[in-house]
Amino acid sequence: MEKEFLQLLKDQSAYEEALALIFWDLRTKIPKNGVDQRSEVIGFLSQKIHQISTSDQMKKYIDGLKNTSQNEIVRKSALDCEEEYERKSKIPDEEYKEYIMLQSKSESVWQEAREKGDFSLLQPYLEQLVAYNKKFAEYWGYEKNRYDALLHTYEPGMTTELLDQVFSEVRKELTTLVEKINQSNVTIDPSLMKQHFPKDKQEQFSQEILKRMGYDFNAGRLDETIHPFAISLNQGDVRVTTRYDEEDFRMAIFGTIHEGGHALYEQNISKDLAQTPLSSGTSMGIHESQSLFWENFISRSEEFWENHYDLFKSIAPKSFEHIELKDFYKAINEVKPSYIRIEADELTYCLHIMIRYELEKALINDEIEVKDLPELWNQKMEDYLGIRPTSDKEGVLQDIHWSAGNFGYFPSYALGYMYAAQFYHVMKKDLDVNTIIKDGNFVAIKEWLSTHIHQYGRKKKPLELLKDITGESLEPRYLVAYLKEKYSKIYNI
Amino acid sequence: MEKEFLQLLKDQSAYEEALALIFWDLRTKIPKNGVDQRSEVIGFLSQKIHQISTSDQMKKYIDGLKNTSQNEIVRKSALDCEEEYERKSKIPDEEYKEYIMLQSKSESVWQEAREKGDFSLLQPYLEQLVAYNKKFAEYWGYEKNRYDALLHTYEPGMTTELLDQVFSEVRKELTTLVEKINQSNVTIDPSLMKQHFPKDKQEQFSQEILKRMGYDFNAGRLDETIHPFAISLNQGDVRVTTRYDEEDFRMAIFGTIHEGGHALYEQNISKDLAQTPLSSGTSMGIHESQSLFWENFISRSEEFWENHYDLFKSIAPKSFEHIELKDFYKAINEVKPSYIRIEADELTYCLHIMIRYELEKALINDEIEVKDLPELWNQKMEDYLGIRPTSDKEGVLQDIHWSAGNFGYFPSYALGYMYAAQFYHVMKKDLDVNTIIKDGNFVAIKEWLSTHIHQYGRKKKPLELLKDITGESLEPRYLVAYLKEKYSKIYNI
Repeated sequence: MEKEFLQLLKDQSAYEEALALIFWDLRTKIPKNGVDQRSEVIGFLSQKIHQISTSDQMKKYIDGLKNTSQNEIVRKSALDCEEEYERKSKIPDEEYKEYIMLQSKSESVWQEAREKGDFSLLQPYLEQLVAYNKKFAEYWGYEKNRYDALLHTYEPGMTTELLDQVFSEVRKELTTLVEKINQSNVTIDPSLMKQHFPKDKQEQFSQEILKRMGYDFNAGRLDETIHPFAISLNQGDVRVTTRYDEEDFRMAIFGTIHEGGHALYEQNISKDLAQTPLSSGTSMGIHESQSLFWENFISRSEEFWENHYDLFKSIAPKSFEHIELKDFYKAINEVKPSYIRIEADELTYCLHIMIRYELEKALINDEIEVKDLPELWNQKMEDYLGIRPTSDKEGVLQDIHWSAGNFGYFPSYALGYMYAAQFYHVMKKDLDVNTIIKDGNFVAIKEWLSTHIHQYGRKKKPLELLKDITGESLEPRYLVAYLKEKYSKIYNI
Repeated sequence: MEKEFLQLLKDQSAYEEALALIFWDLRTKIPKNGVDQRSEVIGFLSQKIHQISTSDQMKKYIDGLKNTSQNEIVRKSALDCEEEYERKSKIPDEEYKEYIMLQSKSESVWQEAREKGDFSLLQPYLEQLVAYNKKFAEYWGYEKNRYDALLHTYEPGMTTELLDQVFSEVRKELTTLVEKINQSNVTIDPSLMKQHFPKDKQEQFSQEILKRMGYDFNAGRLDETIHPFAISLNQGDVRVTTRYDEEDFRMAIFGTIHEGGHALYEQNISKDLAQTPLSSGTSMGIHESQSLFWENFISRSEEFWENHYDLFKSIAPKSFEHIELKDFYKAINEVKPSYIRIEADELTYCLHIMIRYELEKALINDEIEVKDLPELWNQKMEDYLGIRPTSDKEGVLQDIHWSAGNFGYFPSYALGYMYAAQFYHVMKKDLDVNTIIKDGNFVAIKEWLSTHIHQYGRKKKPLELLKDITGESLEPRYLVAYLKEKYSKIYNI
């Protein structure tokens, strides 16, 4: 039965690989007239995957193998498939289909609503999506909080109780820190960064840094896109995409490093797990810990630029030449409350996440209504960041997540920060990280991450992985300490 | 039943579209470590297509619809599916599987054999492939000649009898012409062409010409590859690939135009045929007529360069500046017997094809043996082209076709030339082609091709299409007349 099960997993993985290539192509290469029919292919292949994962055959293998197989990979794959089977099969077919159509419709309405800054267009769709998600949470079940059932999709094992506790601690510390920074007399000139930097030169620098991080170009490539992402087609083909802004190189450079962090994770999962569901990152939060680790902890550090500033200047246009390293370092770490999450700095970013977390949790628990979102959003922005959006375009309409039905996803971003800080704390005990960063040879860092995190794929659940590495559960104090230390120095506070 | 049949065709087309993207990616973008697992995906999806096309369900729809459906597209699709069903289902499953494995093994052996110039490595594989093809021909059946059954796969309706007749006529004329050219006192300096021409500039020129041909970049793209091809993913996404040689721009420019001709065909098939088997070119030969028409009849013509030479010079490096148009025109039309088919000029190309045709026909009819191929090849090269390969690398080992089991394919290339000349003859009655080419606005030409050829897809069989357009069957005299006229002028004979 093991052989048949593994074959079924291979079939599923073949569909997933074809779909992954289609998604990559859709976001990087496809000519516009090809999109309509390609969408039908996506629907067709997705349906095939759905059929396999909810098939009687799958159920039979799961029941026959999850507890008794002597092969750990088979056992854990069966357990993974069981979760998927349960989640999917608990939703009646008709409802699932309606929901898929609603999602797709709602995403396109969101585009229009955002362009027009008109929340009322999206509101009826969001109301339905929230209603479905509440219903799904009830189908799936939960112990204490309905929101836990949704959270579980993205971060298995995470609970609202734990999040409330750590987020409240982090929020208090961060808002205090942001206030202090606002009052600091250190001035940072971000206009230093906004000088023309040709795309091909940015690409050259991005590729060089990816190589130095240990990203394997024999098992991946770098392409241009509008909304950057990394995607694993198979373990030998994990692609990175980035976006170039010729008037602000930071988007491409830090974006590439961020996606490179995701890609390193997928490239270094144990080959033994190939073509099973275990061969991917274990959760959104752990994935984000890898991207944020490289983007912020490494590539926004002083040590990193001590080494790489010469390389940067050798590739950047002459107009960057007069910028001193210390000013450059400050400019790439400027803290400034802003409206848009994806443009937020390292420090205020988590506050953006908490706003979304609090609102979606309240929606799912019937504490607020969809129609009140714009006002509540703006109020929280004022409370946490001290600024108030003047339109919903730079407020509640900025993210695609809710209109895609993704409730419970946002916390992963903040969890990623916290996990990264916890991992970094342990890594620093094992390695002389600062020296390594200064030397610009990241092999030891990459190896550490692969040994402790990457290789396991989904064999370990996020909190299990965290515990194995750090001996602790989620502990926000490492992130707070890291941010305090870094920004006290930069802002002289 | 029609609805269900069309749905089954859509499913099949979805698999084919996913596969087409995988092939495109495999030849343009994939990092090398991704290839192994991707090959499994190709196997998996191909098997799904095979299953659909040989399913009982398919057979039921075919029988129920091929004669009685009121819908022409349904009827012709059913007939098309019937051919596929018959061809595939007449081969026992076990043999089919063995053959697929043999093909794949043989292709990789061919690579090694070619590199080493050692035919003996490939010989046992070729012997098996020939044996299978003979057996398949018997399964499929034929009227007069066993080779007809193979020919039919690539050029439905074509017969050995007809080919023998036209090829012998063309061969006589061409060899005479080549002999005369060899004795001509006109000298052409091909070294004019071999000057450095940066890749990005070649790409710029290629893209510009594709646009002028009427290739729609909203429904396609141009990428780099090693062995250029055009591929239709769907009607809104037909991609062209090309290869750049910075020391000889002719490869990319004429190669792009050639593939652009294939792509125009696929881009302009009637939308009504989408997601049915009728939505592709009707045969290899007709397809080749489209690529060769643009590559040779149009873009190697004097009129073409009268218009485009300014554009060429504005993009080409300064070192091309001193070349006069008349010398340039001659250099891109130099006739010179050479060993390698894909590097052959417009005039000797057909002779290369005839050598292959005669040999493969003899193999299938048990008139020669695989072991004798190298010697027979070289002898024919001497007879038809007056040169004798000094190694099998530049002889019998140069093409992949036989090692991939493709017997009956080669004639399509020569047929393409003849079809193109016949179409061109009629087009010239309808349009003032020379003026159009000189004006560089090819819309009318593209429209003519779309109206008479492209739109029909596989709704018309090749000889039916030829008859409808020209009122004639295959007539080699148009090609001969075209070549005589063109080359008499160039070589002053």
